Formats: sequence, structure tokens, C-alpha cells
Amino acid sequence: MKVAVIGLGLIGGSVAYDLQELHWVKELVGVEKNKVNALVANQLGIVTKIENFEEAVSSSDLILIAVPVNVSEKLLPKVLNKIKPSAIVLDVGSTKNTLVKAVKNHKNRSRYIAAHPMAGTEYSGPQAALKGLFKSRICIICDKENSDEDALIIAHKLFKDIGLKVKFMGAEQHDLHAAYVSHISHISSFVLAETVLDKEKDEQAIFDMAAGGFSSTVRLAKSSPEMWEPIFKQNAKNLSVVLNTYIENMIKFRDLILEDNNSDDLLHKMRKANEIKRIIK
Amino acid sequence: MKVAVIGLGLIGGSVAYDLQELHWVKELVGVEKNKVNALVANQLGIVTKIENFEEAVSSSDLILIAVPVNVSEKLLPKVLNKIKPSAIVLDVGSTKNTLVKAVKNHKNRSRYIAAHPMAGTEYSGPQAALKGLFKSRICIICDKENSDEDALIIAHKLFKDIGLKVKFMGAEQHDLHAAYVSHISHISSFVLAETVLDKEKDEQAIFDMAAGGFSSTVRLAKSSPEMWEPIFKQNAKNLSVVLNTYIENMIKFRDLILEDNNSDDLLHKMRKANEIKRIIK
Repeated sequence: MKVAVIGLGLIGGSVAYDLQELHWVKELVGVEKNKVNALVANQLGIVTKIENFEEAVSSSDLILIAVPVNVSEKLLPKVLNKIKPSAIVLDVGSTKNTLVKAVKNHKNRSRYIAAHPMAGTEYSGPQAALKGLFKSRICIICDKENSDEDALIIAHKLFKDIGLKVKFMGAEQHDLHAAYVSHISHISSFVLAETVLDKEKDEQAIFDMAAGGFSSTVRLAKSSPEMWEPIFKQNAKNLSVVLNTYIENMIKFRDLILEDNNSDDLLHKMRKANEIKRIIK
Repeated sequence: MKVAVIGLGLIGGSVAYDLQELHWVKELVGVEKNKVNALVANQLGIVTKIENFEEAVSSSDLILIAVPVNVSEKLLPKVLNKIKPSAIVLDVGSTKNTLVKAVKNHKNRSRYIAAHPMAGTEYSGPQAALKGLFKSRICIICDKENSDEDALIIAHKLFKDIGLKVKFMGAEQHDLHAAYVSHISHISSFVLAETVLDKEKDEQAIFDMAAGGFSSTVRLAKSSPEMWEPIFKQNAKNLSVVLNTYIENMIKFRDLILEDNNSDDLLHKMRKANEIKRIIK
């Protein structure tokens, strides 16, 4: 089997590492527009060969798209235009609805599988790729009824072999859950970093006090803007719903801190938040 | 030297563990109002003896107060009332201004050192105490000019021996920095947990998607409400300033996501947030 990975960043690079380790592929090639990243990926051994887009897509049995979601939106129809009839196309983006809509009526739609492996770090680029990144994580495959059975079987095996547990969901449902759990976490972290850098002019104090919880809550604010901005845009409607509730809750929290006789109300809100322990150990 | 630790929770218990390990003390006793916690602390070997408040305070050479900050506010003057003339009193709370004000005119004020070791986890109680918790962390001592030289030397040695690097700061300045960096992180995490639990009715989805960044940003929401509510209250003025900016930034972020042609503005905000990388590796 010949596999092409389009986009040799954190996710694409990590998949490529694992596929090589598992001897899953006969030939693994990378497609990478950024010349520096292509060079780095080659030197790190993520892929041994870089091919151009046309060449890779038309000759591969499996094509994995791992680029920012706004790029995927434009790229996916072009990929489906050029594949061999038996080829399988996967993407690994954090939003799925825009993408499935973009190829809804494409003649090769059924060769495409919309997937989202829920793994990552705050780093990006090929140097951020990690072996074993997907171990014991969840991969969500969306709208499976629109993909061919043989393509699903191979995609499922690929994900399982690199350590992922596959779950199925509708694309709309996926984007809602992703907004409510994952995407809002990134926004709260970006805004926290922005605010602290804005208000706290003493950088030494930030460094000294970071162990008091700041470093973990702000970790995601180091994430790639180029990757996350299009995710937020594509998931804007769902995000606005959960952000409105977040803002309301934050205003109420601030008011309760400032009021004099409301310890019970504030404690009640915090105890409600504490319930997250039941779900996340 | 006889040391009394008042409050055998995460911080008090961890200090006690380290002092025992270092053979710092001849006698180490605990004072703990909560009978279950006292029993657990004893069974875990955090302390070998529980004494009552009066007995412990009047006979110890060093008294460490590690209770919620609203309790410390009431307890500290009572402790200073009853100590031996040469005894040293330390507290380890996350707010300092209320406490130094509470004993400003106390005749034994100079035997007290206002300290804040910047270490912890989201867990609480004696079972959460950890050996080596303070290694390579920062401890801030406030208003040192109001403490006796001999008391400062011993407190400094204690903190250094358990692994802390001591820094000095005014109490007001400490509370401002703590609000801007540490306390707001806890609030953003509490509100994130509250919001996600409120909006996301599918707990399995929360569990499945937690690896997408949620688990780290929400970690602090597991923290003890009884410990954090009085911290927020005592630091309300500083917190309201930074929370107002946070809320403004969050509203702007939401609006930029919803607007159509503003990718540059949103990217700009996220790149500003990215600068946190310079300070926190």
C-alpha cells in the first residue's frame, strides 16, 4: 500500500511515524508546501520522500489530509478529483461539518472518511510530531453511512493499529460536542494568556507564580493560531452558544466575589464545577 | 525544636512530611479540628501526635498555619496571643494583605512571617499531601521589614531546606500578582467546568473529548471550594480588575469568531496570546 500524508505537522507527522513503526505501508510519501517543514520532516525520518500534490494523490492507495481545516475545505474536493477509483481519503481535522458539506455531491464522496483523532499537544510543525501520540485516545468518524464499507474497514484498522479507539457520530453532532468541550477550552486559554500578558506587566511575577495553576490552564494558548483560527470560524455558531453561557457564568462569578454576603452562592457554583471530577479523573 | 502544624491538609501535610524527612524537628505535632483528617494524618504518618490548639501553640518553637485564609484571619491573632516570646509563626495562605492587616498592631507581630509557597495540586486534605511538593518552587515572603531578623533566618532556612526559593515582596504587591496570575486561572477553570457541565448534557462526550485540551484547562476546577472561596473574597478588588479585562477580551474574541471578515484581527489576538511561550516553557 502506498500512503500519502498531506501536511507534515504535529498530527500528520505523528501518524506517519506510527505507520512506519508498524510497517503498515510499502511506500510512505509526504506532501508539504512549506519547504522548511518538508526538509525537517525528511531529516527527522517522518517520511523518506516528498512528492508533489498531483503525483502523490494520483498514485496513492490511501491519502491522509492533515492541514488546517480551511485548507482542507479547498483541498479535499481536489484530492477526490484525482484519486484512483479504489483509493481512500481521510482527513483528521477538528471540525467536520464544513468538510462533509464541501464534498456532499462529489462523485467520489464515498471514498472519503471524515475523522477526528482526539489527540495533540500545544506544539506544531514536524518537530512536534510524536511516536505513539494516539495511544489510548478516541478517534471520531463522522457520517460513516456516506463512506464505502471497504474504505471504513481499512480506516478503522489504521486508527486501531496506531492505538485509537474509534467512535461514530454525525458531523453536526461532532462539531457541537467539539465546541462544547475541546474548542472552548482553547479559547478560554487563549483569552487567559492574552489577559494576563495585558494586565501583568511584571514578567518575572508571571514566571514565579506560574506554578500556582497558571501554567496548566494557559498551556493551550501556545497552540498554533493558523490551525485554530479556521477551526473557530468553521464552528462559530456552536461556539457562540457555549461562549455566551461562559461569559454569563463569568460575570455572575465576578459579581458574587464582589458582593458581601454571598459565600453560599459562590460555594454552590464552585461545588457544581467540582462535579467535573466524576467525569475526568 | 518543636513544630506545630495547624491544618493537616495538602500544604500543611506536605510541609510536615518534608520536615520529618529532613530531621528538622525534635517534635512535630499537628492541630486539626476535623477529626477524620486528624486520624488520616496520623495513620499516614504525617504527624505522630495531635495536640489541642492551646497546648500546641503555647509550647512550640515554630507554628505553621495552613488553614483556609478566612480561618487564618481569625486564628493568627489568637496564635500570636499565646506563643512563647521566642516562637516563630508562619502562614502559607494564597492571600497576604488581609492577614498582615489583621495583626498590624499586635504586640507579637514581629514573630510572624507572612509566606506563600507557590505549590499545590487540585486535591485537598491530608491524603493529598505529597513528599517533595515544594522542590524548585518559589516561596514569597511578604513585608519582611515587619518580622524579626532571627525569625526570618529560620523561616528562610526551613523553606530552603524543603526545596523552595525565597523571594520578597510587599503584601499588597503579592496579592495583586497572585490575582493576575494564579487566582484568575482558578476562576477561568471553575467557570469552564461549570459551563461545560451546564451545556454538554452528554457526559460520555465530555469524557471522550477531554484529551482535546479540556482535561488540562479544567484541572483546577477540581480544587477545594472551601479553600478557594475565601481567597477570591479576600482578593476581590484585584480580581475584579483582571476579570473585567478577561470578560472584555472574551466578548471581543466571540465577536471576532462570529464576524465574517476578520481573520487578521483574530489571528493577531491569538499571536499575542502565543507570547506566553516566551515566559512559560
